[in-house]
Amino acid sequence: MNKNLVEKFNSIIGEKGKVLTNEEDLACYSYDAYAETPVMPEIVVKPTDYEQIQQVIKLCNEENIPIVTRGAGSNLSGGTIPKSGGCVLLTTGFNKILEINENDLYAVVQSGVVTATLAKAVEAKGLFYPPDPGSMNISTIGGNVAENAGGLRGLKYGVTKDYVMGVNFFDPEGNSVKGGGKTVKLVTGFNLQGLMVSSEGLLGVMTDITLKLIPKPKTSKSMIVFFDDVITACEMVSAIISSKIVPTTLEFLDNFTIRTVEDATKIGLPTDAGALLLIEVDGYEGQVEEEFSKIFELANKMNGRLKVANNIEEKNKIWEARRKALSSLARLKPTLILEDATVPRSKIPSMMRAIQEITKKYNLTIGTFGHAGDGNLHPTILTDRRDKNEMEIVEKAIDEIFDAALNLDGTLSGEHGVGTAKAKYLEKEVGKGTILYMKKLKKGIDPKGILNPHKMGI
Amino acid sequence: MNKNLVEKFNSIIGEKGKVLTNEEDLACYSYDAYAETPVMPEIVVKPTDYEQIQQVIKLCNEENIPIVTRGAGSNLSGGTIPKSGGCVLLTTGFNKILEINENDLYAVVQSGVVTATLAKAVEAKGLFYPPDPGSMNISTIGGNVAENAGGLRGLKYGVTKDYVMGVNFFDPEGNSVKGGGKTVKLVTGFNLQGLMVSSEGLLGVMTDITLKLIPKPKTSKSMIVFFDDVITACEMVSAIISSKIVPTTLEFLDNFTIRTVEDATKIGLPTDAGALLLIEVDGYEGQVEEEFSKIFELANKMNGRLKVANNIEEKNKIWEARRKALSSLARLKPTLILEDATVPRSKIPSMMRAIQEITKKYNLTIGTFGHAGDGNLHPTILTDRRDKNEMEIVEKAIDEIFDAALNLDGTLSGEHGVGTAKAKYLEKEVGKGTILYMKKLKKGIDPKGILNPHKMGI
Repeated sequence: MNKNLVEKFNSIIGEKGKVLTNEEDLACYSYDAYAETPVMPEIVVKPTDYEQIQQVIKLCNEENIPIVTRGAGSNLSGGTIPKSGGCVLLTTGFNKILEINENDLYAVVQSGVVTATLAKAVEAKGLFYPPDPGSMNISTIGGNVAENAGGLRGLKYGVTKDYVMGVNFFDPEGNSVKGGGKTVKLVTGFNLQGLMVSSEGLLGVMTDITLKLIPKPKTSKSMIVFFDDVITACEMVSAIISSKIVPTTLEFLDNFTIRTVEDATKIGLPTDAGALLLIEVDGYEGQVEEEFSKIFELANKMNGRLKVANNIEEKNKIWEARRKALSSLARLKPTLILEDATVPRSKIPSMMRAIQEITKKYNLTIGTFGHAGDGNLHPTILTDRRDKNEMEIVEKAIDEIFDAALNLDGTLSGEHGVGTAKAKYLEKEVGKGTILYMKKLKKGIDPKGILNPHKMGI
Repeated sequence: MNKNLVEKFNSIIGEKGKVLTNEEDLACYSYDAYAETPVMPEIVVKPTDYEQIQQVIKLCNEENIPIVTRGAGSNLSGGTIPKSGGCVLLTTGFNKILEINENDLYAVVQSGVVTATLAKAVEAKGLFYPPDPGSMNISTIGGNVAENAGGLRGLKYGVTKDYVMGVNFFDPEGNSVKGGGKTVKLVTGFNLQGLMVSSEGLLGVMTDITLKLIPKPKTSKSMIVFFDDVITACEMVSAIISSKIVPTTLEFLDNFTIRTVEDATKIGLPTDAGALLLIEVDGYEGQVEEEFSKIFELANKMNGRLKVANNIEEKNKIWEARRKALSSLARLKPTLILEDATVPRSKIPSMMRAIQEITKKYNLTIGTFGHAGDGNLHPTILTDRRDKNEMEIVEKAIDEIFDAALNLDGTLSGEHGVGTAKAKYLEKEVGKGTILYMKKLKKGIDPKGILNPHKMGI
């Protein structure tokens, strides 16, 4: 980037170390949590107030410099890779919790606040912010909204979109825009706070986000159920939901993942189990006991072996099995491709059968785990990107996994987003008319294509 | 409308009585539930399938004929008054419940399905569709989504937007667009199902809507609490929420409304009460009992007289007081102006004080009732539109009610929408930048301004 321009950015930010142009600094922002060829930005800025953010946007608009807004870069779809160079606008320095309102049950945060930081602050006041994406210890609320992050509690409590009451943001010209607010009911104008959800940085640069909070559940109970057979485990998922129980969490690990986790952690999982379910129910005591009894009964009927966590240590051990799934799998081969196909919950057994068939057909190493309760499986392909022949086969397998999900009324991505990763597949799911509508919407809002261009295939 | 054009509409619909052009027929669609000067459409069509809807849109686009999509016309903001003539596209003939899925907890309906019809069909299967706008016996799901309809259960269960999982719609050119789907988690593309919420017919013509369902609560308890003083009643609302109880319903009637309802119904309300709260808690038995005890305790502490409904008759009687509020008030004077200002819940006492001051200052007849639990009050001004002097005063009072709500971090409209009623006030709440963003969005999607033009002031 030419010196003159860099000087303009410097004069906006006005603080040392918050405008980066050295190659080694830029390199850190050339990739994100999605494994893809890095692309270097030309400049990285780390504004700390509204004025700076607005001025950066105005400057980029005038100079036709693309902006990639980036929080922790923990997204799994290449959403923050700066495909066309330009400016990475880091929100991590814009990270104040502005308000936690106990009377009205909402919080207002700046977009760079880390999810776990908010969750803890809220919990200290006896309240609860349920969305818990796997990356919550580093991910930012702005990123969570942009990607509509999911998590383990999606089944009962929904995902990020279900908690967004209001969003203030700047449009690509630096105008200040306000969607929603602090009231539970609000219908003044288009649902712009809703539009910011899943917008992946293409429609605005978020500043303040108002999030709904709920009272903390009184009590909870965690359990683990082992099954000899993977399909029976999947059928148990449907059986639970059909009996009108909505657990907080209902996670699944297949035999391959169980063995890999046990190898890595030695926490004592039975490696001969075909699959396991991790289940947590929460709420009022009577309700929790009733739901637990029903699940216990179902598990017996379906030949599952249920183990309940009797204390916090046992509970933590149960959840460690799930938390270590991805990192344990990642140790096995150089490249890990984490898929995110999602189906209506009752279709989980059919989806699992399809994944098994595809695994066998192409002789691939696939470990499957995920949020079975909300139909969101993560078939994880272990491979080596340098092996071109195998990569061709992997591509075919991914295509077939997507086809299977769509045939079952599902979606290509439950919680990871489109970014660059799923761009080429998007039309398959949503159709030509939808892509056209998205393009017209983007063009109307951002005619010069300043905000995160070349993403989502539009 | 010229004969040639009418013939084209006839050849699309192809059924007698479903294309209306007679003045007396058109007159029925020149107004809606919002009291405003009627405007005649040029033609009314009642398509019954996807193909017909698509062809009508394509024809209107080609011929530059504005389209007002209309369900029951029960909106309270003039959203379905055909400001620029053109074509009223009635969805009431497009009213099939396509699927109620008990295993995956969703329903798919065509946009013309009546809300109460869906609610009953769902309840028959042990499930629950919570949004219950006052007009639910006639309103359509399409209209509910377009207006983001609220209702009495918003406090605990949220509003229409919280139940919209997917929307299929046509864009202004008749292209088929798909937002969301049947999975709890779904992040493929922009949140177009979210964008349809509150879009008031400006951004697409909805066809199929996928709605989230939840298990029916096990039990519930209704009660009524009388207070000598209106402000104490409002403080009780905050006290309940602050003690982390979220009732299903928490409704408020002021003394004027109590007296008016009692006059009209003779159900035995104490006409000397300063205000009353109608409260319902639901869920598991233990939880309901615990919440009831806490509310009972709070009521005692705040000198409220609590009466619990011991059976379904008593429960119905309690709710009749609320259901009859609007119609009872409407008997008093020729013109009823129902406002919809909404504030964060803890600000209800301040808002009520402001309404009292404004009532006194302008010497107006205002009855206030509403969904106090979610901060959504309906101050209802009784007047006579023919009295120009009083109407000028009424306008001033409305301005001050809005200012009070905005000063308390609230909104001009909690659940009734913008339409033509609030168009001129909108900028006051959302600011210039937001109006500009909405205009750019609308222009991008609908450059010719075919869909419900001249609404929302954009």
